[in-house]
Amino acid sequence: MSKKWVYLFTEGNSTMRELLGGKGAGMGEMTRTGVPVPPGFTITTEACNAYYDLGKKMPEGLWDQAREALKDVEAKSGKKFGDANNPLLVSVRSGARESMPGMMDTVLNLGLNAQTLEGLSKQTGNPRFAADAYRRFVQLFGKIVLGVDGEKLEHVMNHAKGKNRADTDLSAQELTDIANQFKKLIKEDTGNDFPEDPNKQLEMAIMAVFNSWMGRRAIDYRRIEKIPDNIGTGVNVQAMVFGNMGDDSATGVAFTRNPATGENDMFGEYLINAQGEDVVAGIRTPKPIDQMAKELPQSHKEFLTIAHKLEAHYKDVQDVEFTIERGKLWMLQTRNGKRTGMAAVRIAVDLVEEGVIDKKTALGRVKPEMLNQFLFPIVDGKTAAVTPKLATGLAAGPGAASGKVCFDPDRAAEWAEKGEVVILVRTETAPEDFHGMVASAAILTARGGLTSHAAVVARQMGKCCVCGCGDIEIDYQKGIFTSGDVVVKEGDFITVDGHSGTVYNGQIKTSESEVIQVIRGTLKPEQSLLYGYFFKFLSWSDEVRTMGVRANADTPTDARVARMFGAQGIGLCRTEHMFFEGDRIDAIRQMIVASTVAERKAALAKVEPLQQADFEGLFTEMDGFPVTIRTLDPPLHEFLPHGDAEIDALAKKMGISYAVLKGKIENMHESNPMLGFRGCRLGIEYPEITEMQARAIFRAVVAVKKRGITVLPEVMIPLVGDVSELRIQKALVVRVAEEVKKESGIDFEYMVGTMIELPRAALTADKIAAEAEFFSFGTNDLTQTTFGMSRDDAGKFLPKYVEQKLLPEDPFQVLDQEGVGQLVRMGVERGRATRPGMKTGICGEHGGEPASVKFCHNAGLNYVSCSPYRVVIARLAAAQAVLEAKK
Amino acid sequence: MSKKWVYLFTEGNSTMRELLGGKGAGMGEMTRTGVPVPPGFTITTEACNAYYDLGKKMPEGLWDQAREALKDVEAKSGKKFGDANNPLLVSVRSGARESMPGMMDTVLNLGLNAQTLEGLSKQTGNPRFAADAYRRFVQLFGKIVLGVDGEKLEHVMNHAKGKNRADTDLSAQELTDIANQFKKLIKEDTGNDFPEDPNKQLEMAIMAVFNSWMGRRAIDYRRIEKIPDNIGTGVNVQAMVFGNMGDDSATGVAFTRNPATGENDMFGEYLINAQGEDVVAGIRTPKPIDQMAKELPQSHKEFLTIAHKLEAHYKDVQDVEFTIERGKLWMLQTRNGKRTGMAAVRIAVDLVEEGVIDKKTALGRVKPEMLNQFLFPIVDGKTAAVTPKLATGLAAGPGAASGKVCFDPDRAAEWAEKGEVVILVRTETAPEDFHGMVASAAILTARGGLTSHAAVVARQMGKCCVCGCGDIEIDYQKGIFTSGDVVVKEGDFITVDGHSGTVYNGQIKTSESEVIQVIRGTLKPEQSLLYGYFFKFLSWSDEVRTMGVRANADTPTDARVARMFGAQGIGLCRTEHMFFEGDRIDAIRQMIVASTVAERKAALAKVEPLQQADFEGLFTEMDGFPVTIRTLDPPLHEFLPHGDAEIDALAKKMGISYAVLKGKIENMHESNPMLGFRGCRLGIEYPEITEMQARAIFRAVVAVKKRGITVLPEVMIPLVGDVSELRIQKALVVRVAEEVKKESGIDFEYMVGTMIELPRAALTADKIAAEAEFFSFGTNDLTQTTFGMSRDDAGKFLPKYVEQKLLPEDPFQVLDQEGVGQLVRMGVERGRATRPGMKTGICGEHGGEPASVKFCHNAGLNYVSCSPYRVVIARLAAAQAVLEAKK
Repeated sequence: MSKKWVYLFTEGNSTMRELLGGKGAGMGEMTRTGVPVPPGFTITTEACNAYYDLGKKMPEGLWDQAREALKDVEAKSGKKFGDANNPLLVSVRSGARESMPGMMDTVLNLGLNAQTLEGLSKQTGNPRFAADAYRRFVQLFGKIVLGVDGEKLEHVMNHAKGKNRADTDLSAQELTDIANQFKKLIKEDTGNDFPEDPNKQLEMAIMAVFNSWMGRRAIDYRRIEKIPDNIGTGVNVQAMVFGNMGDDSATGVAFTRNPATGENDMFGEYLINAQGEDVVAGIRTPKPIDQMAKELPQSHKEFLTIAHKLEAHYKDVQDVEFTIERGKLWMLQTRNGKRTGMAAVRIAVDLVEEGVIDKKTALGRVKPEMLNQFLFPIVDGKTAAVTPKLATGLAAGPGAASGKVCFDPDRAAEWAEKGEVVILVRTETAPEDFHGMVASAAILTARGGLTSHAAVVARQMGKCCVCGCGDIEIDYQKGIFTSGDVVVKEGDFITVDGHSGTVYNGQIKTSESEVIQVIRGTLKPEQSLLYGYFFKFLSWSDEVRTMGVRANADTPTDARVARMFGAQGIGLCRTEHMFFEGDRIDAIRQMIVASTVAERKAALAKVEPLQQADFEGLFTEMDGFPVTIRTLDPPLHEFLPHGDAEIDALAKKMGISYAVLKGKIENMHESNPMLGFRGCRLGIEYPEITEMQARAIFRAVVAVKKRGITVLPEVMIPLVGDVSELRIQKALVVRVAEEVKKESGIDFEYMVGTMIELPRAALTADKIAAEAEFFSFGTNDLTQTTFGMSRDDAGKFLPKYVEQKLLPEDPFQVLDQEGVGQLVRMGVERGRATRPGMKTGICGEHGGEPASVKFCHNAGLNYVSCSPYRVVIARLAAAQAVLEAKK
Repeated sequence: MSKKWVYLFTEGNSTMRELLGGKGAGMGEMTRTGVPVPPGFTITTEACNAYYDLGKKMPEGLWDQAREALKDVEAKSGKKFGDANNPLLVSVRSGARESMPGMMDTVLNLGLNAQTLEGLSKQTGNPRFAADAYRRFVQLFGKIVLGVDGEKLEHVMNHAKGKNRADTDLSAQELTDIANQFKKLIKEDTGNDFPEDPNKQLEMAIMAVFNSWMGRRAIDYRRIEKIPDNIGTGVNVQAMVFGNMGDDSATGVAFTRNPATGENDMFGEYLINAQGEDVVAGIRTPKPIDQMAKELPQSHKEFLTIAHKLEAHYKDVQDVEFTIERGKLWMLQTRNGKRTGMAAVRIAVDLVEEGVIDKKTALGRVKPEMLNQFLFPIVDGKTAAVTPKLATGLAAGPGAASGKVCFDPDRAAEWAEKGEVVILVRTETAPEDFHGMVASAAILTARGGLTSHAAVVARQMGKCCVCGCGDIEIDYQKGIFTSGDVVVKEGDFITVDGHSGTVYNGQIKTSESEVIQVIRGTLKPEQSLLYGYFFKFLSWSDEVRTMGVRANADTPTDARVARMFGAQGIGLCRTEHMFFEGDRIDAIRQMIVASTVAERKAALAKVEPLQQADFEGLFTEMDGFPVTIRTLDPPLHEFLPHGDAEIDALAKKMGISYAVLKGKIENMHESNPMLGFRGCRLGIEYPEITEMQARAIFRAVVAVKKRGITVLPEVMIPLVGDVSELRIQKALVVRVAEEVKKESGIDFEYMVGTMIELPRAALTADKIAAEAEFFSFGTNDLTQTTFGMSRDDAGKFLPKYVEQKLLPEDPFQVLDQEGVGQLVRMGVERGRATRPGMKTGICGEHGGEPASVKFCHNAGLNYVSCSPYRVVIARLAAAQAVLEAKK
């Protein structure tokens, strides 16, 4: 006996999603629950896979089972498939495990031919309706199943209508003529007659649905949505019902709650005397569902009852489709409704408070990334749809902004001062552009990846940014940029959508987040419903998660924001970011070009009180929480100018010759700065730098302690590859700590640890742990070295890798568990073998990416640290990790 | 009871080297063997360590035991320490486990003071001898034990001598006066009286020897020779004997065989009526040992007997010191003689053939690196000693050369054509300098590490090279380079010693290797004794070793040389090196800047026949052996010019505008090229490149097969980080192979494998092995990524790391077993778990470094591959690995 390939709707239920697809399982579940659903059956996803395994052949037994099931449908509907008097018409639709709206094909009114058309006409007493159904069927079948160019068919239709008539103006005869013309065109195009045998039609339609599973659109969609190719689609064959059989007929769609805001308010639209596709097509404007109470009161009442029943049954917002055929309500689909992040949170919270679901279930209902929508301005979708797209780059910093193009950071600052909204457009950005970036509403760069200077700074500031936008070419001299044929001048308006990476030509309305307004103090918490929902939801995730969440923050402002978002400490303070503030860069540069230790110490002495003040500010904000401070990390040449004019200016300021300074800068050039003279290598060569930083840290500790502030400083040595490096730097830090204790007479706690960001550090973690009191995994650099891939240069090939599925994800965005993850696990295990229970965390960009956060939980890390604006995402992801691990 | 700190010579033997040091154990062994040795005792190395553990204090019991031992010496010598009539004088010498010649201190004639001086005078009947002994003692003790500036003491001596008198012209009275002046100076300098109590003298001298263990010189020496600091030194206290007691007295040193050539011919020198230090000091010219047969026939005969006995006893060449006191022969030292590489091999072979040792012992007697000396010209030591040193850089390419400085590769080629010997001096070299490098006898660069272009090319060619010579500064415009105050003009003579990294100002004689002459065919094997010894010795290592040795070779010439040196195949053919030959670089450049696939394919079509010819040449030379060919690896921009003039010229040649070409080149710029668009990333983006290379390989296979040549090609895909990369490239190679089989009708074997040169490749080796038929560990890149350290940039900090012992070795020279080694082992284990018995090799620079070769053996690799000139080193190291593993 052959396998069971076909299930009647009466045999299915919602647990059979894998086998029957979402739609099939939903039909089964609705049928089971007593909801009025036209009878039908589902061909399994296994049949689809078998079809492909057999080289696109129907598996044995399928057709017999389908014919058998069709008999059941005939019995239930009281009609007969292919019968000249009382014909049964069916729809044939796809339905995979995951919803893929619009990606695959549907055939309606199947079963019509010359004979059954007559029957339908008689059966309904409506020849025009019958003729229209026939026309629709031939057109759809021709295009989808037989592969005839849809435009050609449309052309026939338009030609018949003439200029001034709508579809509805066509008579029964005209519609029949059109159908016949379609058939002629199909014959010419395909060389075959249009199939008249309903059974043949059905067989062909089923195969067409199978084939659409591997269509270009479907494959692309799955790649983007990370849906595997091998799950297959189900095929649903269902008795047709018609919403276009007169004024007692209608069709509509609805959400049981508002999918944009989450409000508990039925949201939907319907059309009297229409087929389902008409609602979507936009030819007639549908009416809000409330009006149905007047037009079709009985059906409306019945619909509300069923819709609420479905929501209660599925315990989630339902997205339903219905048809009313001559006063009889049929439900054609129900599924969990797609919703915005704001709606997702509100609905989850409301459902908990309504007693429908528990908190844990609620936490699983929101994708962590969706929380972003609470924080950033959003492009208005309707305006965006009619605004020309200029280019697409990498979505690097969240939010959206409309403003005037400006190519120069100084000018950007000037314009901003005058109250202009500026978008800074640069080939790439550098530390000296910082003031211009601060002044701008958004940043757009032509080059650089998701961890380029522009992207890192933007994310840190929570600023909208699109980077690596290779479509645009900037000509600074002419003051323009071009994208294809379009030329944009400085001062022109563009809109940058940092959520999608899209750049628009012109202004688009954007709206500012309420949560941010509350955080900034421009709105009171009680004034914002969104804020209330947001933090209530997040507090539930804190009840569940076991892993800490800290923030990467370098300034008191960042620290304050991070705390308001729920950060439980600072996991990474990059001291070098402090070096660019104000005039201190001059002292830093003097330090770098110093020829003697004495000169270097003199320059460092200028920086030290400023650093100490920075740390005091940070510690004050983080009262009671740990603060991890990384000693100087980047290559020193990053602090020096490279243009001749800037070098000349700096030389004059320093009182040395241009040639000498130029020579020093050239001497510092590195072939691979990422692998060069940086990290602890700096502190080992110039111990006075580490010493200055350690003193600034510990004196700051003492200073704030006197003011009653509790601070738990963790000094972190970067880029350690061998325990000897940590040993020598730690000894220095410990010595300075003891000195500060002695000079101040105040005792304090502190830790010295290291970053694990080189493969060798993970491999020798057992040895490093003998010195390190904590580990923080620097997964940015660890990914670069493990893959041998520079983030800055990977733009040349990495996108193609992801596109071709050579790698499942960009490993700089989502932690590579297979490779880099092994080193993280190894680091934790070996480190704790030497130092049981050692504190371990992660401070790479991955610390704010949900899948990576979950990995960190499973690897046993104590905390993740991420940018302040991603703290909320990490909190939720950490909670979900606990819930998923329990399953 | 306290620990035993002191051993009489009669208690020691050669197995006690760790405890007694080399000299102490040697004295014991000689005493035990019945060789005449002045009586004495040894203070153990443990005592030295205890001294340091106690903060530089004598451990308890030491002094009592020493006094006790001294009584034994008194009894055996019939003299008494400190006795006014018959005084015993002693020497106090260091002696560590490893020989550290001249690195630590010695005190002679200890025990003299006003009273014992009288006694010595009477005892010997030679007041002048006694006064001279006293003068020597006070001078040595003052300098070494009391730390008085040696030059001040020397000044006193020179002042007393006046202008025209030698030491020997001074009278007893004058010598006594000088000794007294020394004592006065010492008192002034140190504030203390010169110690008159012999016991005090002895105690102070012992402590001085202990202290010298941690002296600057000793520490430096140990760092260079990789001797640990914690093994301590022994102290030998021994009765003095005097070779300066008249014409029946003498002193001398000898090697039982020639230490430079290995000839079995006693080699030594002696002086009548002299103390040991006089032989070395060079004041009088010593006589060859043969003459002693005439001057002191009885002692000579006795000496020969003892020396041969010692050689037979130790089964190795002995370096002995002796003194004849009034006709009585005393042996003062014997140790295994240091020898050149040439001598080491000859002696080892001779000893085997004399039946003294077996082959395995012989193989252990030669450090693999020493084999280098057979291959390269050597600087003549005597001339070098009197030639001013200019600078020191990294010893990058072996050999030595004297020639004229030339700053320009074109000019170098011109000069060489005229028959000049040229030394190319550049800040650094680039591929376009290749012809100039070929033409030069040696290469000197101011910048770049041991794997810079200059160094790699030089080693590949077996050419003398010193690189990274930061001491020199080149001014191309003035045509000079300077080193400190010295200015060297183009055309001046310098000498470059690639073994030591030294650069000399002027010409030094160098001699060409006989082995190379034989390899080159300019000398017949039977004409070269050295060649015979060399290959006999190497053939023994082949009998023992289990690991294969291949060569990295890119040209038929390299391949031929490699084969003559015993390479069993090519482990790495870098196809890109072929790209620079002749005009093909033009086609390569066209390929790189191509805008379309068609353009790229057209350019590749020009290269393909040339590549095929290259491979045919290589396969022909390697008949019967496997040849591993790596597909294109380096970043493409390495093939493009960067100077404006060259870009302009190339643009003209290509018929495109300067601006377009310049733009393309700038577009290819990478922040970290090492981690950028290279390796298999190229072949994945441009499959047509891999396809061209695969076709060239397989068509070459077919072509040579038709000529009866057996070839085993192994196609190697570089820089794989994920199995998917290998899968896609392998599929392409396999397809091309099948196509070539079909078009030619000839079947052939081949393999497709990958390099393991990224941490992620090692971590996921189990998955990669599903596709890879072999692994070749690229430990250069693996070291760079594991450490996060660029070879090109590490010069800024790595030397200091090694100096400060943060790392035991430069990991680019000696494979880092602790970190990188873990990944190699992991790669082998995981790879073979998936594909049992999979062939694995190494093709990084480490493949020719002995310690790394031994690691590879222990890690279970099938072969190492190294530059042709290091094949012999690898052969020996692989054999030693087997022998050492058995121990």
